[in-house]
Amino acid sequence: MKTVIIGGVAAGMSAATRLRRLKEDAEIVVFEMSPNVSYANCGLPYFVSDVISNRSDLLLQTPTSLYNRFRLDVRVGHKVTKIDPAAKTVTVLNLDTQEVSEHGYDNLVIATGAKPRRLDIPGIDRALTLRDVVDADRVKALVHDAGPQAKAVVLGAGFIGVELAENLAHLGVDTTLVQRGASILSQFDAEMVEPLQAHLVANGVKLITNATPHEITDTEVVLADGRRIHADVVFSATGVVPDNALAKDAGLKLGPTGGLWVNERQQTSDPSIYAAGDAVEKQSELTPGAALVPLANLANRHGRLIADAIAGKATAAHPALGSIIIGAFGVGAAITGLSEKAAVKAGIAHTAIHLHPGSHAGYYPGAKRVSLKVLFDPETGRLLGAQGVGMDGVDKRIDVLATAIRAGMTVDDLMDLELAYSPQYGSAKDPINHAGYIGNNVLHGTTPTIQWHELPQALANGRILVDVRTEKENGAGTIPGAINIPVDALRDHLEELVGQQVVVTCQVGQRGHTATQILRGHGIDVVNLSGGYVTWKSAQDALAR
Amino acid sequence: MKTVIIGGVAAGMSAATRLRRLKEDAEIVVFEMSPNVSYANCGLPYFVSDVISNRSDLLLQTPTSLYNRFRLDVRVGHKVTKIDPAAKTVTVLNLDTQEVSEHGYDNLVIATGAKPRRLDIPGIDRALTLRDVVDADRVKALVHDAGPQAKAVVLGAGFIGVELAENLAHLGVDTTLVQRGASILSQFDAEMVEPLQAHLVANGVKLITNATPHEITDTEVVLADGRRIHADVVFSATGVVPDNALAKDAGLKLGPTGGLWVNERQQTSDPSIYAAGDAVEKQSELTPGAALVPLANLANRHGRLIADAIAGKATAAHPALGSIIIGAFGVGAAITGLSEKAAVKAGIAHTAIHLHPGSHAGYYPGAKRVSLKVLFDPETGRLLGAQGVGMDGVDKRIDVLATAIRAGMTVDDLMDLELAYSPQYGSAKDPINHAGYIGNNVLHGTTPTIQWHELPQALANGRILVDVRTEKENGAGTIPGAINIPVDALRDHLEELVGQQVVVTCQVGQRGHTATQILRGHGIDVVNLSGGYVTWKSAQDALAR
Repeated sequence: MKTVIIGGVAAGMSAATRLRRLKEDAEIVVFEMSPNVSYANCGLPYFVSDVISNRSDLLLQTPTSLYNRFRLDVRVGHKVTKIDPAAKTVTVLNLDTQEVSEHGYDNLVIATGAKPRRLDIPGIDRALTLRDVVDADRVKALVHDAGPQAKAVVLGAGFIGVELAENLAHLGVDTTLVQRGASILSQFDAEMVEPLQAHLVANGVKLITNATPHEITDTEVVLADGRRIHADVVFSATGVVPDNALAKDAGLKLGPTGGLWVNERQQTSDPSIYAAGDAVEKQSELTPGAALVPLANLANRHGRLIADAIAGKATAAHPALGSIIIGAFGVGAAITGLSEKAAVKAGIAHTAIHLHPGSHAGYYPGAKRVSLKVLFDPETGRLLGAQGVGMDGVDKRIDVLATAIRAGMTVDDLMDLELAYSPQYGSAKDPINHAGYIGNNVLHGTTPTIQWHELPQALANGRILVDVRTEKENGAGTIPGAINIPVDALRDHLEELVGQQVVVTCQVGQRGHTATQILRGHGIDVVNLSGGYVTWKSAQDALAR
Repeated sequence: MKTVIIGGVAAGMSAATRLRRLKEDAEIVVFEMSPNVSYANCGLPYFVSDVISNRSDLLLQTPTSLYNRFRLDVRVGHKVTKIDPAAKTVTVLNLDTQEVSEHGYDNLVIATGAKPRRLDIPGIDRALTLRDVVDADRVKALVHDAGPQAKAVVLGAGFIGVELAENLAHLGVDTTLVQRGASILSQFDAEMVEPLQAHLVANGVKLITNATPHEITDTEVVLADGRRIHADVVFSATGVVPDNALAKDAGLKLGPTGGLWVNERQQTSDPSIYAAGDAVEKQSELTPGAALVPLANLANRHGRLIADAIAGKATAAHPALGSIIIGAFGVGAAITGLSEKAAVKAGIAHTAIHLHPGSHAGYYPGAKRVSLKVLFDPETGRLLGAQGVGMDGVDKRIDVLATAIRAGMTVDDLMDLELAYSPQYGSAKDPINHAGYIGNNVLHGTTPTIQWHELPQALANGRILVDVRTEKENGAGTIPGAINIPVDALRDHLEELVGQQVVVTCQVGQRGHTATQILRGHGIDVVNLSGGYVTWKSAQDALAR
């Protein structure tokens, strides 16, 4: 039995090594068009800045090491140019010798990945992209030649763009990050990504949002509004698209997303041809239909699954949730499941809560703020998504929430999660439990809550806004129009509020919750502003960019 | 409606503040026998060493702040001496004035916590304990008076004992930690806690295991085997017992564990009397019956639940899983659910796997080893428990596993968890996914595996042991009797192994997995040693203490 695999990185190599483990006698040939296999593509931006200084650290395996351990026939610098599903052959071009050969297969695995999306503007050829180690070498050399006095422009503030900008700034390069949308990292809601945006700017990255690149000249990037940015080096990181030309030419079915269609055993429309990784679309766990989810963990998982399928094991892919994290200058931002804008777009009913607890017990030194947003179904409480941002402990909370979402838990269930606590690691009421408590209060009507984007309408409808923080906090900045009655003084000011419709706000929402209960206890119609001043301020700052 | 609460820390104060939020007009009186309420008892060991330098950081609330915000009537230095369930009254002694008073209640909440277990040996009165801020003040003063030349002995290597030992060593105090059992932290399996034990010793803590204290003299601790340890200061941290004398005297039902019995609404056998926290036993999630689980998160959760119950909300406590973490000198050790010894004791069938992945991608600087042990049901794969130890990322993995166990997930489900990955936070195959892959291979018979404690019997039964690491690794230390055939050379040595029964071992189990598949592919009867040399060595080191 002969299996041919096109692509020797995450999905392809997971399929190859797993298949060898399951079938010692299988014939396995891997064609990889770049000169390297099993390279750490998620590490490439960090190699550019020498955070990863040793190039060999990026090369996790070589054809020789893979032969020695797994008896894999790995051919780098070999580009598959054609698949013939009827004949069960692939045509291969040796990029070194230009020799063309044909290879039969019993099973074929397509793991061709995704390629950078190409902007259709004049001068785009000058823009560098970052897909493989060869690209990284080129970028590193150019940045080195240009020197720390160079000015760089990065087009696109997705994950690769932001990581590139961080690493260029690390090198002292004057870096401008240009984003078409209103904020970076379009997977996130604006108020959640704002702390990371502010942190990028504080660390010297020049951020231009709502900007469309128009042209790249020899010295500049020109925006559609006429702004010109000097650019010794230009990077294009405006997203990726499935690299499925081969599959398309072979007549394999593509999905509505443009990704290659596969069934739950990762089989394409030709049952002898499997596919996984960024070239392929995934079924979505939380929304109807398919989505492109170009993530390394799914590529590895589904590559392994293909080997199981070829070996005849019972197996099936799970619909994709999508969990992502990015870190820059020490701030992490992570998301799992639906953002609020994704829920709105998909027409999925949702309630959102915001909270800003500490990464560990406040009385133990070094706690950092973890800002969380959690979405759940307004009827059942079923968790739909979560986002987090902060300097510590964000990854942990999003991973717990990703697990809870996968398990079909409700926001109430978060109250009862028993998470490991000692003061340097968490809190007796972990941020996750806090989210459960807050969600429980909102879901069951204990504390009616509004979002920052609902505030203007609430005020227009005649609600008055009461800032229940201290006079000092209020003086340092508050929401326009708020009157200040500290929560501890609220019971002495009831007569001013009876008969009014009120919105209360505090710093993060917790005193607002207490204030809501006090006022409700005295018959006053009141709602709490979710996430308080911190969330509101992040949203305003994001809108002002 | 008047609610009296006995105990003003975690459970008691959670009940009090939640009840006020739900009932603005409730009368709420809290009696706390110590001079402080809402203090951070988990921070006390760190206050002793000035890691938490500011005493006021431990005092999260005061009676005045609680009155101002919540209109709570909090009386510190007030000891409840009697409960009369028939009359619905409590008798209270003012420890300051010695005045005795009686107070009626509609609902009573018992949150009296746990007290240090007292060793019944001569001289025990000299031993210090650490339950509240007053204790911490006394300890701090004594340690300060004794000076850094002092020698301290800590009896008991549970959580408080280990934390105390760490903090005393931080102060430069010569510290000996005496443990009755074979290893510290009896919740853990020995091989899992060994890296922390070794780390304590490497950081100057003298550890004596398998030792029974016999007597405390004015200058020494004398062990049952006659050994004498000079001790200027002695601490007793030999566990805690529910502080339920009051409840017992009032005729309330105690459970089989000695903890106060409650139903799922936290009601005692008297429906007007609720109880939560360390005084109370919990129903166990994974084993039949009740258990003592003296943890702060459950105390807070159940305190809140009592308020909901009193306010008439639908609510029910979830059976307890028990998740714990401790950190010392930068190494964390955490557990959730069942240890292997707990599973054995409870007669619960289980399969255990060991793994030692990195805390994040190996190609990104700073990754640390995370050693994990995961238990699951041998038939269904249902997760039963997990332990972790390491310098980074242990808390995250145990929290994810605690969530997965609570959700009823199987070890197979861990393969499909989508955890947030970028190279500084995790791996494309996160340690959790790895556990899933390994468990999947074991559960479904792909890679038959044995544990370190099963190895002697396997060898006695005639299996030969093959170390498949490199010659260099083998030379640096291996399991006695192992022959060395590196995995990459295995296919060239098949004739030596055909017809044999084999155990393969490597460093952490991963190459052993590949070796197992190679040999099985050639018809050889082979099993892999779970966790490889690292787990085996930890177990031997633990046994040798």
